[in-house]
Amino acid sequence: MNFLEQRILKDGIVKEGNVLKVDSFLNHQMDVALIDEIGKEFHRRFSDKEITKVLTIEASGIAIAYAAARCFGVPMVFAKKAKSINIDGDMYTAEVESFTHKNKNKVIVSKKFLSPEDKVLIVDDFLANGCALQGLISITEAAGAEVAGIGIAIEKGFQYGGRSIRNLGYQLESLAIVESMDSENGNVVFRAQDK
Amino acid sequence: MNFLEQRILKDGIVKEGNVLKVDSFLNHQMDVALIDEIGKEFHRRFSDKEITKVLTIEASGIAIAYAAARCFGVPMVFAKKAKSINIDGDMYTAEVESFTHKNKNKVIVSKKFLSPEDKVLIVDDFLANGCALQGLISITEAAGAEVAGIGIAIEKGFQYGGRSIRNLGYQLESLAIVESMDSENGNVVFRAQDK
Repeated sequence: MNFLEQRILKDGIVKEGNVLKVDSFLNHQMDVALIDEIGKEFHRRFSDKEITKVLTIEASGIAIAYAAARCFGVPMVFAKKAKSINIDGDMYTAEVESFTHKNKNKVIVSKKFLSPEDKVLIVDDFLANGCALQGLISITEAAGAEVAGIGIAIEKGFQYGGRSIRNLGYQLESLAIVESMDSENGNVVFRAQDK
Repeated sequence: MNFLEQRILKDGIVKEGNVLKVDSFLNHQMDVALIDEIGKEFHRRFSDKEITKVLTIEASGIAIAYAAARCFGVPMVFAKKAKSINIDGDMYTAEVESFTHKNKNKVIVSKKFLSPEDKVLIVDDFLANGCALQGLISITEAAGAEVAGIGIAIEKGFQYGGRSIRNLGYQLESLAIVESMDSENGNVVFRAQDK
């Protein structure tokens, strides 16, 4: 069992409706040492990919993406959820549905920050149905850049996002894949992985 | 002139309506080395404050807060902008108006993550009218915690946010204070600071 799986068992809370709360260390309060470890682990798993940019989506992916970008020594870009008056008109867009918030957002990345030369590592904290990830993949490919890898902290293995993205041929690495969880007794079962 | 002021002169873009675009290095694409420097500088300026937690607001404050929290070796907490089904009912709230997006958001911090023992460093990327900052101050004080310091990357010195917060007695440190800027010729004038 790796460091993130251990931490989920220790501090994660299973709620009804297949909700896994990790807000004490991953996506509201953040344990800086843990996030650093996640960044290092992504670097280890994608170290042969000549990553030139790390891409994520606001908000909770930002710290993880930053930690990864530090290890690669490359810039980090985060997709924004709404049109701001501070963003130029020239941007890539994708429509993203949120499992957590039950709504749709248009996400945008300025065309200045992705180019056909880029080898992009996409990262996020959670993967469930994969909508956010599909949006980031679509934006990367619209730029003519390469999706060199995808790093996820926690994947809900019982939802279809991970499988469909792997079926498309992307190297998707999730540090913890939850196979099942039980809000009655708090149990979390992880998929066995050789890493 | 410090490292951030130099970077603003090099890569910042002045737009009409007193908009300073720093999206190539601070709040859309992020220069990791620069953000690390900002974190170190906040640590230097508040090293005597026994900080126990760094607090920010999503989204663009997160990387800066993370960089600062790394230096202090403490957890980072970010206030969220909307009610998520993944957040418990028990939370501190504040109403925040965005200068950039021209809208109001309710921001929330779970009561689990701030306590009366906490000495909080509040950080953000921008300070203009101070609404976001006032929300974070109000949440910190509602928790009975101490606002031990406030660190801002870029302050718009010609708006009233910084003055009103300093008048309230808080130690507010802005790494770059823009006194004026001109979208005609791209000039940016900084307030002289002894730091």
